[in-house]
Amino acid sequence: MVNLNPSASYSLTVQLEIPNRPGALASVMSAIASVGGSLGDISLLQRNLKYTQRELSIDASSSEHADKIITAIEALPSVKVISYCDRTFAIHQGGKISMVSKLPLKSQSDLAMAYTPGVGRICRAIADEPEQVYSLTIKGNTVAVVTDGSAVLGLGNLGPQAALPVMEGKALLFKEFAKIDAFPICLATQDTEKIIEAVKNIAPVFGGINLEDIAAPRCFEIEQRLRKELDIPVFHDDQHGTAIVSLAALYNALKLVGKTLEEIKIVINGAGAAGIAIANLFKKAGATTIWLCDSKGILSQQRNDLSEEKKVFAVSTSGTLADAMHDADVFLGVSAPGVVTPEMVHTMASQPIVMAMANPIPEIQPELIYDDVAVMATGRSDYPNQINNVLAFPGVFRGALDCRASGITINMYLEAAKAIAALINSEDLDREHIIPSVFDPRVADAVASAVRQAALQDGVARK
Amino acid sequence: MVNLNPSASYSLTVQLEIPNRPGALASVMSAIASVGGSLGDISLLQRNLKYTQRELSIDASSSEHADKIITAIEALPSVKVISYCDRTFAIHQGGKISMVSKLPLKSQSDLAMAYTPGVGRICRAIADEPEQVYSLTIKGNTVAVVTDGSAVLGLGNLGPQAALPVMEGKALLFKEFAKIDAFPICLATQDTEKIIEAVKNIAPVFGGINLEDIAAPRCFEIEQRLRKELDIPVFHDDQHGTAIVSLAALYNALKLVGKTLEEIKIVINGAGAAGIAIANLFKKAGATTIWLCDSKGILSQQRNDLSEEKKVFAVSTSGTLADAMHDADVFLGVSAPGVVTPEMVHTMASQPIVMAMANPIPEIQPELIYDDVAVMATGRSDYPNQINNVLAFPGVFRGALDCRASGITINMYLEAAKAIAALINSEDLDREHIIPSVFDPRVADAVASAVRQAALQDGVARK
Repeated sequence: MVNLNPSASYSLTVQLEIPNRPGALASVMSAIASVGGSLGDISLLQRNLKYTQRELSIDASSSEHADKIITAIEALPSVKVISYCDRTFAIHQGGKISMVSKLPLKSQSDLAMAYTPGVGRICRAIADEPEQVYSLTIKGNTVAVVTDGSAVLGLGNLGPQAALPVMEGKALLFKEFAKIDAFPICLATQDTEKIIEAVKNIAPVFGGINLEDIAAPRCFEIEQRLRKELDIPVFHDDQHGTAIVSLAALYNALKLVGKTLEEIKIVINGAGAAGIAIANLFKKAGATTIWLCDSKGILSQQRNDLSEEKKVFAVSTSGTLADAMHDADVFLGVSAPGVVTPEMVHTMASQPIVMAMANPIPEIQPELIYDDVAVMATGRSDYPNQINNVLAFPGVFRGALDCRASGITINMYLEAAKAIAALINSEDLDREHIIPSVFDPRVADAVASAVRQAALQDGVARK
Repeated sequence: MVNLNPSASYSLTVQLEIPNRPGALASVMSAIASVGGSLGDISLLQRNLKYTQRELSIDASSSEHADKIITAIEALPSVKVISYCDRTFAIHQGGKISMVSKLPLKSQSDLAMAYTPGVGRICRAIADEPEQVYSLTIKGNTVAVVTDGSAVLGLGNLGPQAALPVMEGKALLFKEFAKIDAFPICLATQDTEKIIEAVKNIAPVFGGINLEDIAAPRCFEIEQRLRKELDIPVFHDDQHGTAIVSLAALYNALKLVGKTLEEIKIVINGAGAAGIAIANLFKKAGATTIWLCDSKGILSQQRNDLSEEKKVFAVSTSGTLADAMHDADVFLGVSAPGVVTPEMVHTMASQPIVMAMANPIPEIQPELIYDDVAVMATGRSDYPNQINNVLAFPGVFRGALDCRASGITINMYLEAAKAIAALINSEDLDREHIIPSVFDPRVADAVASAVRQAALQDGVARK
């Protein structure tokens, strides 16, 4: 098993009482270092002649590691641990989003305008002219983040309540990156028809539907049907968000190695929602040779265990992932930790591109092959070239909402990918910078603008 | 038709250019007064030697009246209307609520704790111990405001999109009065079973369900079934909110006239959701003689057109509303404008109590009978004794959420009513003060505390 580095996801806040003498703090820091803890902020809470009280932020690599760090501090004879808490759990207390009023509500006239009787006039206006719902209510800027909890992150079928922290997090990202009001809808059903019906029934309030963490193959039918049956954009982020950002990264990686989409061989490992969507989008973008693999190897015409979605990509060759990777120009993984070895990478074509996007542990650790590849990307923030959906979905919805799109087209995906890639200009483009940072403030606007243009061209913009 | 007074629901903001000489502003005010406009704020935007620019807020009584006011100003020879807008429409632009993040999201470690990979630990914690969803997500403080748009205010079946402004308004009130995060759910179905299924399917995210503006008799079954099938509080505000506040008002009105619930005759006009719920709660509170009327008169055992809910209240007497009101101690209307005449009130018992709650135009205008009754209440903010649900529902949900109630009991309603009534102490109690103002800051806390106590006694509190 690959060891993870200490990270903020296992971060502690520890309050300590330390003797007020030279070297005391240093001994605490040594104790933390001796067990591999990674120190962040250190703040002084108070000090008297005998003691100082300090608060330390310490990143650990697991809960057990966090315990080990506390034990190491407690073992220091003159240091007292006043309290400690798990920062991740602390920030999730009470949830991460809140509803606020945009209006004052301090007087009878405020009430009379915002609520009865004044609000009745607004209701009538919408009843008379239904399009007005976009300007007179939250609909025009509000997205539902919908899950059934069946494929929560990489953790599996945890159910709707355990999925809620992720959906709230997504709502945070929508707000932070695109000023969109998103609300989590975690459904108490995992039945395809019932999910479709539930989403259609709640749709009046929303300007768009972001499907999230719904297992394949159910997610394909749900998305297809909702796209057909609703007049607002429906977007399964695990599929198309990942596909858009992967394509953006690939565009720039190919520039670096001087190859074109049409001539290369691409191997995608993982034939779930993301893998299939990536393959589809790469094909639309011009890729001609794409081999998909699942846990049983290459999706081959010889296999009789393939779903409809997988069959589309079946090739005449059979074999393992290792077989597939021979002479491949691009390996892209949306699968499982550690399934790729350095030896497999060594069999790839010259100047190979490796995008190992399994989260949080990639298909292969970058340090193992860094010198053997032309470009290496992962899903992680602590390595260069992070393939992160947050580069796509906020801008995609911003663009779609702004032009009141009735749906989302493949062109909108393609243009979004091009817009993300174009943010890295030729001077900045190198093997460690094929894709903008998630905090690059230009991203959402660039994507939104590209998406709006494509919506206009495709005739789905209603404004 | 009764003429409405100018009110904030038809309020204008007008920007004017007025000659900068004495008397010019007075001429504008006279023009407004001459057509019955009611002036609010007047502010000076800018002034030069020749002109002043001012912004005026003017309340009108209807859209036509607003037009008349503008016309009257425009008729002034030296005054120029720069612009004007309908304030109610202006404040609803883009909707009235917004979603905000409770966390910073400015660095990779913020992201790593709030979203992947850190959020995965929170998901696992909830999957392992489902009760944790209340502390680690928004669930514990979040209420769905659910409608099918079938009975929007007094306006009828306007559908889910036209109902959204009301549901957003309700969310405002939840936040303002009880710090509850509420979100509007407007369903694209008016089928009882489908509504029940939709609400059950979205329930995982919510700590409570507030049903709103759903037509009778459908609302009864929906509420009953959801109460049985969900483990969170379900409350149809049109029924029980109205009933709680009506009972609170009645408690205090009876103190003034020295009568008891057990001995009086109560006539309720309107046998929809509110009327039936009020009758039920009054009965639980001890009332023995309640005559309900609908548009066809007294709910009598001789009638064969009564629903199950109405049959419960059928009496042996037949007749009209006027017949019912003979010798009644209390008239309570949740019906239609102007259906009660002064003559009907004159046939009531001595010291009659009249609660004419049709909105915005009561069953009888207070000025017509003010000297003939002991106590007069309406649903309006511009007369004394406003019976407004906002006195009840924020505190009811605050109390229920705080003790993590699995449901709501009749005792919780009764205690809420008593708590509201008790806020008017004996020195302040008079015929114009039987109920606190909606802006009385004590109300929500008092109701919440009473509701928590009752939940504990009834064994539905889980915390």
